[in-house]
Amino acid sequence: MFELYGFENLETPAIENLDALGKYLPDIDRPNQGVFSWKDEESSWLALRYDLTAPLARVYAQYSNELPFPYRRYSWGPVWRNEKPGPGRYRQFYQCDADTVGAHSVVSEAEMCMMLSTIIEKIGIKKDKYIINVNNRKILNGILETVGIGDINDNFINSSLSDMVLRSIDKIDRLGLQGVKDLLGAGRKDESGDFTTGANLKDEQINHIIQFISMKNDTNYNTLKHIETLVGNSTVGKQGINELQQILELSEAAGFLEDRIRVNPGIVRGLGYYTGPVFEAELIEKIHNEDDTFTEIGSVAGGGRYDGLVKRFTGKVIPATGFSLGVDRLLYAFNQIKSKEKNYEVGPVIVTIMEKDKFKDYQQIVNDLRNAGIKSELYLGNPKDLGRQLKYADKRRSRFALIMGSEELKKDVIQIKDLELGSKISSQIKTHEEWKDQPAQVEIKKDELIEYIMKLPR
Amino acid sequence: MFELYGFENLETPAIENLDALGKYLPDIDRPNQGVFSWKDEESSWLALRYDLTAPLARVYAQYSNELPFPYRRYSWGPVWRNEKPGPGRYRQFYQCDADTVGAHSVVSEAEMCMMLSTIIEKIGIKKDKYIINVNNRKILNGILETVGIGDINDNFINSSLSDMVLRSIDKIDRLGLQGVKDLLGAGRKDESGDFTTGANLKDEQINHIIQFISMKNDTNYNTLKHIETLVGNSTVGKQGINELQQILELSEAAGFLEDRIRVNPGIVRGLGYYTGPVFEAELIEKIHNEDDTFTEIGSVAGGGRYDGLVKRFTGKVIPATGFSLGVDRLLYAFNQIKSKEKNYEVGPVIVTIMEKDKFKDYQQIVNDLRNAGIKSELYLGNPKDLGRQLKYADKRRSRFALIMGSEELKKDVIQIKDLELGSKISSQIKTHEEWKDQPAQVEIKKDELIEYIMKLPR
Repeated sequence: MFELYGFENLETPAIENLDALGKYLPDIDRPNQGVFSWKDEESSWLALRYDLTAPLARVYAQYSNELPFPYRRYSWGPVWRNEKPGPGRYRQFYQCDADTVGAHSVVSEAEMCMMLSTIIEKIGIKKDKYIINVNNRKILNGILETVGIGDINDNFINSSLSDMVLRSIDKIDRLGLQGVKDLLGAGRKDESGDFTTGANLKDEQINHIIQFISMKNDTNYNTLKHIETLVGNSTVGKQGINELQQILELSEAAGFLEDRIRVNPGIVRGLGYYTGPVFEAELIEKIHNEDDTFTEIGSVAGGGRYDGLVKRFTGKVIPATGFSLGVDRLLYAFNQIKSKEKNYEVGPVIVTIMEKDKFKDYQQIVNDLRNAGIKSELYLGNPKDLGRQLKYADKRRSRFALIMGSEELKKDVIQIKDLELGSKISSQIKTHEEWKDQPAQVEIKKDELIEYIMKLPR
Repeated sequence: MFELYGFENLETPAIENLDALGKYLPDIDRPNQGVFSWKDEESSWLALRYDLTAPLARVYAQYSNELPFPYRRYSWGPVWRNEKPGPGRYRQFYQCDADTVGAHSVVSEAEMCMMLSTIIEKIGIKKDKYIINVNNRKILNGILETVGIGDINDNFINSSLSDMVLRSIDKIDRLGLQGVKDLLGAGRKDESGDFTTGANLKDEQINHIIQFISMKNDTNYNTLKHIETLVGNSTVGKQGINELQQILELSEAAGFLEDRIRVNPGIVRGLGYYTGPVFEAELIEKIHNEDDTFTEIGSVAGGGRYDGLVKRFTGKVIPATGFSLGVDRLLYAFNQIKSKEKNYEVGPVIVTIMEKDKFKDYQQIVNDLRNAGIKSELYLGNPKDLGRQLKYADKRRSRFALIMGSEELKKDVIQIKDLELGSKISSQIKTHEEWKDQPAQVEIKKDELIEYIMKLPR
């Protein structure tokens, strides 16, 4: 999918110089916390990569003369965080990023949104089950400007008050509108009794911001019109609206309409470094788990423009935009969807061993199955009883076991055992003869095996 | 391919406890050398995995109750060596391993050889371009027994003399028969003048061994018969022959004949821990490089039975067999083969920007191409002149650029520029009009774009 959009794969080593990572860590106050690092024999500090953006910046700084300009790349692989693991928090996890370095125009954001949409649908998530939300930090800055907060510009560093406001808005998913309102005002006490200091804005300021982030309109263009009334004369705000408009127009020209890409003023995307459009892919339906519970997945990918970030590395302001896919969440959603469609993750067909001197015959069968593209294997353990072999097949989540004793071999037939039906009683039955009486067992001619198996659900 | 053979993917973290790796490193005398390791905050030692076998043994020891028995798994990913990098030697590289834990029978070796063959052919290497060589350490031990060397048995630890002999035989590829002969005898001086001490065997011992490793026979069965005359009454030797015979019979039953799998007495497979059959996939033709040089790739995968190894980890003797694919070598061979078939690794179709206010039209075109599965992209840089855009396309290794100025847009036509022809002169031409006169440019109707591009080599 990435290649279809002209993105090249870039693979970088897991180990970087700590120095290179340190310049780049999102939290500039704690340069090395959260990083696995050690001192090498030649006494330089090495570290495992923390994300895929720092290595991109390092590579870009090192090889910019040889790379195409603009440079589109995607990358995926493990990253490491030296933090206490917890539920859903691992010290090693996968990231998958796509970034474009060197393009000023929001044409690249339109491209990112479309590519994200294409990827998500390719994974098997249908058009009505997700949405790409887009917003623009410039509009947010414009809104803050109209309510007179801080010295707002489109640089990397915002004033601390506007930062506080953005952080509050970013919590809307978790705290709801009232929570955000409290944080913008006097502060908020959570359920445990902990108190978070608020931004102490005036009521009219709060109302203006809340009106912005909570607006509901039937179309993207009505949303943009509505935003226009709120940003007033703010130059940066107008610029932000104009950029969003371009993104929507380009996407529409390519057939990505507002059922896929939607303006959502509530989107901030936490990290301080975004400077322009921000976007996020959200699964809008809860996932129905196998055990009949529901999981709200929410955001599965997000990103935006970060024109200030590469500078930390190269000293030169280089425009950049990109997103990161939440690989674990997406995989989880994908597996749940897949397992609903075909609610048995099926292991290989197991060819059981009934006669120890007939391995060649069994080997032939298993090979025929493989040549037909059917996952299959010979039982490799001690074949002393059939029950043990069928238990093994259960553990492998196999749907079918093939059974050929001396009689079957003589008659050129095969017993096909349906394990889904048979698994419950497999532990009580030991002999081949007993099995034959089970309803879940069918005898077919050897010649017809492939054709027969191909028709069955596997 | 692995799944087709019933192997499950197992992914393990890159970081292990150093302790777990240390028990397991191939060179038992230098437990931690070559490993990236560091002390964690809670003062336990952590390390980056050195190979994929130690993590398998650790997982197997930890979860053996939950895993199927026997357990077939494959795994791939980066491993790290803390060594001085050099040409073709990196501190991070990829391994891809398949192992079966818990199966005594050489049915699993037959399966390994067949799977290896299937994988290599799937990669695009033809049947007459590679061979799976098999041998058996038991036969080697039998040969040593017949010449009266050491106290040979099929245990993990061999006597140091027999180790020395095996190490010498293992060098046959690099040193040739005479080199091995010297090492078995008085010793060998290399080109630089360095002298390697020999095993000081008697001539008749040396001749017997050399006769074994250099035998040439027209069929596998003649090779086995020939070996039989050399192992004499050695029990372990006879057992080894019998095992090889079984492997061949099973493979043949599945259609893998001696043009794919061949007995080769010269195969030792360095590591001391093999205890039974060993095998190796060898590319038998030199790779014809793009620059008309030839590279001898040789072995691209190898493995064998290592019944003693899991014991180091669990204390329990557990039979195991497996192989490791040389990912880098295979990829190299694959890329060379691919690039010969289609000697242009082609980048995306570039849609150039001639009119800045017509982005929507360009976006539509690029989307139509993607919907047809054609890699393509909009030019995202500063579109001020066409030459710059075409240079970019060159850097992307694109074969085609699409050009639509105001005139083309009006007439609903597209100029298709063949960059392979045009690249040489692209730097001298700046305007759209000049380009139109080039022979490598064709004008087609917009409606016919997809059909036209689909027919071209990309």
